[in-house]
Amino acid sequence: MKPNQISLPVDKLPKKWYNIAPDLPEPLPPPKEPSDGPSRMEFLGKTMIHECLKQESSSDRWIPIPEEIRELYIQAGRPRPLYRAKRLEDQLGLKKVRLYYKREDLSPTGSHKVNTALAQAYFAAKEGKEALVTETGAGQWGSALSYAARLMDLDCIVFWVRAVYDWKTDRRTFIKLLGATVYASPSNETKIGRELLAKDSNHPGSLGIAVSEGLEYANSHEGSVYCLGSVLNHVLIHQSIIGLETIEQFKLADDEPDLIVGCLGGGSNFGGIALPFAGEMLQDKRECEFLAAQSQAAPNLVSGEYRYDFGDVAEQTPLLKMFTLGHLTEMVPIRADGLRYHAAAPLVSALRNHEIVKAVAYPANEEAVFMAARMFFQSEGWLIAPESAYAVKASIDEALKAEKAAEEKVICMNISGHGFLDIEAYRDKLGIK
Amino acid sequence: MKPNQISLPVDKLPKKWYNIAPDLPEPLPPPKEPSDGPSRMEFLGKTMIHECLKQESSSDRWIPIPEEIRELYIQAGRPRPLYRAKRLEDQLGLKKVRLYYKREDLSPTGSHKVNTALAQAYFAAKEGKEALVTETGAGQWGSALSYAARLMDLDCIVFWVRAVYDWKTDRRTFIKLLGATVYASPSNETKIGRELLAKDSNHPGSLGIAVSEGLEYANSHEGSVYCLGSVLNHVLIHQSIIGLETIEQFKLADDEPDLIVGCLGGGSNFGGIALPFAGEMLQDKRECEFLAAQSQAAPNLVSGEYRYDFGDVAEQTPLLKMFTLGHLTEMVPIRADGLRYHAAAPLVSALRNHEIVKAVAYPANEEAVFMAARMFFQSEGWLIAPESAYAVKASIDEALKAEKAAEEKVICMNISGHGFLDIEAYRDKLGIK
Repeated sequence: MKPNQISLPVDKLPKKWYNIAPDLPEPLPPPKEPSDGPSRMEFLGKTMIHECLKQESSSDRWIPIPEEIRELYIQAGRPRPLYRAKRLEDQLGLKKVRLYYKREDLSPTGSHKVNTALAQAYFAAKEGKEALVTETGAGQWGSALSYAARLMDLDCIVFWVRAVYDWKTDRRTFIKLLGATVYASPSNETKIGRELLAKDSNHPGSLGIAVSEGLEYANSHEGSVYCLGSVLNHVLIHQSIIGLETIEQFKLADDEPDLIVGCLGGGSNFGGIALPFAGEMLQDKRECEFLAAQSQAAPNLVSGEYRYDFGDVAEQTPLLKMFTLGHLTEMVPIRADGLRYHAAAPLVSALRNHEIVKAVAYPANEEAVFMAARMFFQSEGWLIAPESAYAVKASIDEALKAEKAAEEKVICMNISGHGFLDIEAYRDKLGIK
Repeated sequence: MKPNQISLPVDKLPKKWYNIAPDLPEPLPPPKEPSDGPSRMEFLGKTMIHECLKQESSSDRWIPIPEEIRELYIQAGRPRPLYRAKRLEDQLGLKKVRLYYKREDLSPTGSHKVNTALAQAYFAAKEGKEALVTETGAGQWGSALSYAARLMDLDCIVFWVRAVYDWKTDRRTFIKLLGATVYASPSNETKIGRELLAKDSNHPGSLGIAVSEGLEYANSHEGSVYCLGSVLNHVLIHQSIIGLETIEQFKLADDEPDLIVGCLGGGSNFGGIALPFAGEMLQDKRECEFLAAQSQAAPNLVSGEYRYDFGDVAEQTPLLKMFTLGHLTEMVPIRADGLRYHAAAPLVSALRNHEIVKAVAYPANEEAVFMAARMFFQSEGWLIAPESAYAVKASIDEALKAEKAAEEKVICMNISGHGFLDIEAYRDKLGIK
């Protein structure tokens, strides 16, 4: 019998990232300057990592992964296994449908975010930078960048929305243990922060404020760069390592996926698993469908408009063409905080516009997705992140639909992270005492 | 350059467990009945899994791992990688000493305990049992057995010391999510529990009481068996999978360890990594030293006596010949709760008696070990369990000693578990705000 775990040998770790831009049906609409205010591109050009900006507009299909980054990936546990979800299939009574899942939950910080964090830290160090600056909401990105900075011996400064900073004590300790400097935002470290604190010394902060503080800080401190963890092309390029490994693992399993499923907030985990497969499809090398699993709290691909919008609430980024709910849209809080973003990455949005990517959104009360996560835990034995629960829920729904139609189908989902720091959410959503 | 991650292919997962008993310099002193009370052996014979009791007194060197258990191991992520700790070596400035670590932290429940839990659940199911019963203190063993029961479709009943049950909310949710029934002990489910609750309805409980409740429950419920997670021979046999994989991985790395280090409470994680290497040494196939890292809260191998003693406070087990502090010894609380046990497993104790195993104990305030764990996190990037921190601390101490003496040395430590559910301990011990 074939084992349920399909492991790629360490020496088969991909040597190149994949960039889907040159394979898109039409060129990716470029970023644009907004009609008023200072040049955002000039500002970002000074504040971000040059190699990442170069990749951002690259038309190369393959981008070599420097040997040092490959070593960092291996240190962080890559390649990560692909699993055949045989036990979940049995639980669901599937006969015609086969399920697989990719294990990004085995990450040292608990999510796929390390894949770009390590790349960015390496390039920053190579450009002589000394400090990485960022904002964080739920804390996953702040954890990943702190981790990457530590491994590259760089400083890391994280501006963290105060309302979250105050209660996420374990995540906060995790980040501080890595040696990062963490400021509750608004903070006294920036002009904008001081102004807000003068008005309200207990200001709860927001992601927009944290971005503004981070950008101001990076721009005013020599040797600092600002790092972003989702949405942008270079982030999705780094995340392509997920899908590239998965392609090799399907060859080892002697099988082929008909449908790739990932959860989607900004699009880095979805893009990571989907784009390498989509690229092969666009090159007529395979047939495949793609499904993004979202929350009705932020259904950007389901009910957003395809238009130019800011990437952030603070309007400090250039305008990007994306499926967006509007950058000032208020979104209700959900436990899968990583899915709470107003727009989908330009590369994913372009595929959505060509109807290559489909999307589904689940109710913001999240009961159905947490029940799917419990079923996954009880059958496969791995406790997953609330975000990943959306991919599992969508995969189960698609599997049952195909089974009912007596359709043979192979579904591959990405498990973006583990749930060890989200147990309180399970307790709350499933009413466990 | 050689990669830091040394992975064993899935198809190289060992097919047999190793039993050191026949290779010991002299026969293992057998268990004995205490001079008063009912026959403990008869009682356990009725209450435990028959296959495990058979293994307990087996003189076979190799015990085949049933194919179904191998599949469960693979599902649970085995084989687990061995890492060369190159980054920690650099941090310590080592030139002559090489460090390696085995990754039991990649376990679905967070510790090595699943290795025996899965075996016990499989054998229980094969013997037609329907429920696994146990006690738990810190919660690691309760988690592992709940997990294994779920995967084998068995019920699991956990008696959990009330004082711990009340505050370990995340561990409790984790166990309940797996579908186990958890009782705060003393409980109303047993005669002994009801008697204690009648006297004090808020009785905090103890491990001894929880063991007594579990045994009474298993003995009075048809189809139930009682499972133990450490100390006994069959547990150490199941855990030998750790060391057996590590032996193969050192061959792949073209290197050989001079010293094996593991933390030790009852001895299942230490025995798991050490005994397969010790067996090869006893068969004159290699030279190697062994070091158990303990807490001064429970330094059974350091200052215990080698004599017959009960395995539990409640005096329900037969007498076992062990290095013991005395089964009624009170031990101060420490964060590495898994190391708080009065005696070391008979197999490990026998090796200690022959001076094959050495031991060191670190102060119960645990500051030094948590600092070692932080250094490990900051260099290697993996957050480890408080128990594992003792192995890391001892390995660092030994490495620096060898380096100072300009002695070439290869040290391999076992990382018994991850620290995602122990972050509060890090916060407390390292004074992080």
